Amino acid sequence: MNKEDFFIKQISNSKYNGDDGAFIDGYVYSMDAFFENVHFKKDWMSLKQIAYKSMLVNISDAIAMNAKPKYALISVAIPNSYNENDLKALSSGFKKAAKEFDFEIVGGDTIENNKLDISITIISKTKEPKFRNSAKINDFICYTGKLGSCKKDLETLLNGKKIKKSSKFMTPVLKADFFYEAAKYVNASMDISDGLFLDLEKLSKASNIGFEFIKDIKEEVGISGEEYEILFSCSAKNLKKIEDIAKKHKVKINIFAKAIKGSYKSSFENHHFKN
Amino acid sequence: MNKEDFFIKQISNSKYNGDDGAFIDGYVYSMDAFFENVHFKKDWMSLKQIAYKSMLVNISDAIAMNAKPKYALISVAIPNSYNENDLKALSSGFKKAAKEFDFEIVGGDTIENNKLDISITIISKTKEPKFRNSAKINDFICYTGKLGSCKKDLETLLNGKKIKKSSKFMTPVLKADFFYEAAKYVNASMDISDGLFLDLEKLSKASNIGFEFIKDIKEEVGISGEEYEILFSCSAKNLKKIEDIAKKHKVKINIFAKAIKGSYKSSFENHHFKN
Repeated sequence: MNKEDFFIKQISNSKYNGDDGAFIDGYVYSMDAFFENVHFKKDWMSLKQIAYKSMLVNISDAIAMNAKPKYALISVAIPNSYNENDLKALSSGFKKAAKEFDFEIVGGDTIENNKLDISITIISKTKEPKFRNSAKINDFICYTGKLGSCKKDLETLLNGKKIKKSSKFMTPVLKADFFYEAAKYVNASMDISDGLFLDLEKLSKASNIGFEFIKDIKEEVGISGEEYEILFSCSAKNLKKIEDIAKKHKVKINIFAKAIKGSYKSSFENHHFKN
Repeated sequence: MNKEDFFIKQISNSKYNGDDGAFIDGYVYSMDAFFENVHFKKDWMSLKQIAYKSMLVNISDAIAMNAKPKYALISVAIPNSYNENDLKALSSGFKKAAKEFDFEIVGGDTIENNKLDISITIISKTKEPKFRNSAKINDFICYTGKLGSCKKDLETLLNGKKIKKSSKFMTPVLKADFFYEAAKYVNASMDISDGLFLDLEKLSKASNIGFEFIKDIKEEVGISGEEYEILFSCSAKNLKKIEDIAKKHKVKINIFAKAIKGSYKSSFENHHFKN
């Protein structure tokens, strides 16, 4: 067991834990950290891009649970060297996300620190939350978009080279409109943040299922983290409906496995960037 | 204007900002950071004490708004060097607070970092929230407890010396039971985190009032931060009721000013510890 899992187990056996967010009384509460030298290096992206991505990775949790962000709290630790323009750039990234996804920044905390460390709590609303624990035997297992580029781009950055501005590693491309429409046909869902293989392991554990792979998933696809695509399961009956909705929203759907009795364990470690 | 104020102004003109937490639909949402070398140094306190205090400073916001903590989200950045015992010590501090104040830790994030940085969001419930903007002319202005020791103890720590285990700087003493009973007689309230003078400035601004001091507040009392006492205002009529409740709970009440027309500006800077 890694330290993260150990700590989470220690700290809480809450029934609300285990999904991308905690669903309580119509709301989904999700919180994610986005820290310098842990999730990004400052010369990789502009301050606006950093702030914007820190929001997107949080919003991704809400979307994967079929919840719409309503409010955000932001705790930002800011280096003393930042000037007013830097602060403006940062806040413009936060505000961009709030505007785009139509929610309000209602509070938080600002402190001085040796590096830029952001933690965000998103409060989202949903009438029909989606969880990780409700995939059913014979469900098709699917993900949106294309996986693999984030790992490649991360490696490029770690090698001191530049990546394209359009890179999903720089700016995750969330599939909000598609998923809010498709969710009613979905049994279980979560976002792909740790990499498909590791996230499948979580889905397997939560839903108590194994997988029979229809398509071969290459290693560079399965261990690419921070993709923020949606991993979901649905019945054979609903698959066509979801495919139609995906087509309408120009979202690629990959049907790559079926849920079977059993369990699934990834043989790969967490591939988040660590300093 | 300091950078914190500038950034907060940039990021949000939400009507929910400006109190210890954001009151929305029966809930209060508050978020505070508790970072190594910003709020504490690791040789000052045990990991359990650090985790416990990080919770208390957040719960303090809820209490000051007359809200009862129900759920917490915790984002913890943990040094790689921490072993299982360290993680257990940390989580025991978080759990101690959750047990004592009867709320549930429902989620968050755990990452690896070069130092221990904690951000916490507390979700609290209240039927009668208290704000900073409702102090009225002629109100008495009061605070609970004794102010000054936290600044002294912080200085002692910064000088490399030890402080008592019973120090309020180590373990804030929240006046929850008193305030939940007294709140209905209170007009405006907030916790004292930046120091009485600076927090009075915030109260003045929010309620659009000035202060006529009944008692002289010494500098070492007025600029002592992280006290986590409650600053509140009440009518002359309600003062006696509040004093009776305070007596019952063995809480000291200091009546030190009256609200008058005008405004109040502290001549002191923020005295939070900065590295």
